[in-house]
Amino acid sequence: MQYVKIKDALVEQIESGTLMPRQKLPAERKLAESFDTTRVTLREALSLLEAEGRIFREDRRGWFISPEPLKYDPTETLNFTNMALSQNRQPHTTLVAAKAMMATKKAAELLNLPPFSDIFRVDRVRYLEDRPVVFVTNYIRTEQFPNLLSHDLSLSLTDIYREQYGVVYSKVKYRVSTTSLLGEMAQALRATSGTPAMMVERINYNQHGELIDCDIEYWRHDAISIESVAQLQANQR
Amino acid sequence: MQYVKIKDALVEQIESGTLMPRQKLPAERKLAESFDTTRVTLREALSLLEAEGRIFREDRRGWFISPEPLKYDPTETLNFTNMALSQNRQPHTTLVAAKAMMATKKAAELLNLPPFSDIFRVDRVRYLEDRPVVFVTNYIRTEQFPNLLSHDLSLSLTDIYREQYGVVYSKVKYRVSTTSLLGEMAQALRATSGTPAMMVERINYNQHGELIDCDIEYWRHDAISIESVAQLQANQR
Repeated sequence: MQYVKIKDALVEQIESGTLMPRQKLPAERKLAESFDTTRVTLREALSLLEAEGRIFREDRRGWFISPEPLKYDPTETLNFTNMALSQNRQPHTTLVAAKAMMATKKAAELLNLPPFSDIFRVDRVRYLEDRPVVFVTNYIRTEQFPNLLSHDLSLSLTDIYREQYGVVYSKVKYRVSTTSLLGEMAQALRATSGTPAMMVERINYNQHGELIDCDIEYWRHDAISIESVAQLQANQR
Repeated sequence: MQYVKIKDALVEQIESGTLMPRQKLPAERKLAESFDTTRVTLREALSLLEAEGRIFREDRRGWFISPEPLKYDPTETLNFTNMALSQNRQPHTTLVAAKAMMATKKAAELLNLPPFSDIFRVDRVRYLEDRPVVFVTNYIRTEQFPNLLSHDLSLSLTDIYREQYGVVYSKVKYRVSTTSLLGEMAQALRATSGTPAMMVERINYNQHGELIDCDIEYWRHDAISIESVAQLQANQR
């Protein structure tokens, strides 16, 4: 199929370094011309490259070559900033919204709370080299964190928990699945509506085994590679 | 946007049980009529539902409601059959191909072997309730498994390793990312070319810490939910 050949040609240009990470691709019209193909076929090729995480699209700006994904080990580091820095990336975080509210049905379930409980909700966008890569919503049980909202929530929640409240993460339950970006979330990540995404949901426990918060992360799927090492118990082999 | 409304209406029908797991959706033409919309808009809605894993398409057969995804804990169970049975699913496996070969560049890298080393390659398709959900390729170092190809490789490799060779998995390095299905792999999973997929790559070590094999799994992304629990070390918090 022609679009697979075009895809392979572009992959080769990426792997050989002819096309560099973060480089903008020519306009679709020009690309279609240079491959002597139609825009429909070209778009099929681009859509495959997007699915494979080789390129990404920014809304109204066009297609770009994906940088290396961030290696994300759900069993090790819970701090985006340190994780990014240790991989020589430039992270930053913006606070979208922080408020006290009544738990939604989903939040109450995740936090194991009765309906209508008070919780905090914190929405943030995290960037690598000025590219927004993940939209994170934290739902937080209030009882361990009085006045949480008075802190600078663009900083690490992990650090605030530890330094201000003496609470540390000690266990995490996580789930990884795929979804798509819609509405404000798509907008915040400069994505067109319907862009594929990787969703990471985590439920976090403190040093006493108590549930403290959960976070729901919508990643630009090309920006993340989930990697870990597990030792297997004899009874699990 | 209209297609988001149509998507939400279908999600509601799925969650209320009006549409049941494995049920076939009406033809696109009929669906478009019943939502009083165009086929283009309907397809946008279906594409979102596919991205979210709510529905899946079988090539030339149409759209179906996705069953519950299989919970897959990369740190616990390395045996597809037991994993499926423990979740009340009906697994089976077909052998696509098994051969001795020279390692490709990628296989040599994954297995930490010099170029042109001899390896085994085993390709299999795994099913849940007669639906093909994952295409698995194992690349296997030969030295620990003489005559491996003489065994029935539609059975569990884990069991063959243990029972025939006294080798057990004791450590696994894994990586999860997203990709798309193409060519024979798409065909084997009854998917149209370009269907989004979740890729799990694992490198497996035996009880002496030696690398024994790797497997590359292409999952129908709606069929899998990666879930695990991690205890965090104090220095990792």
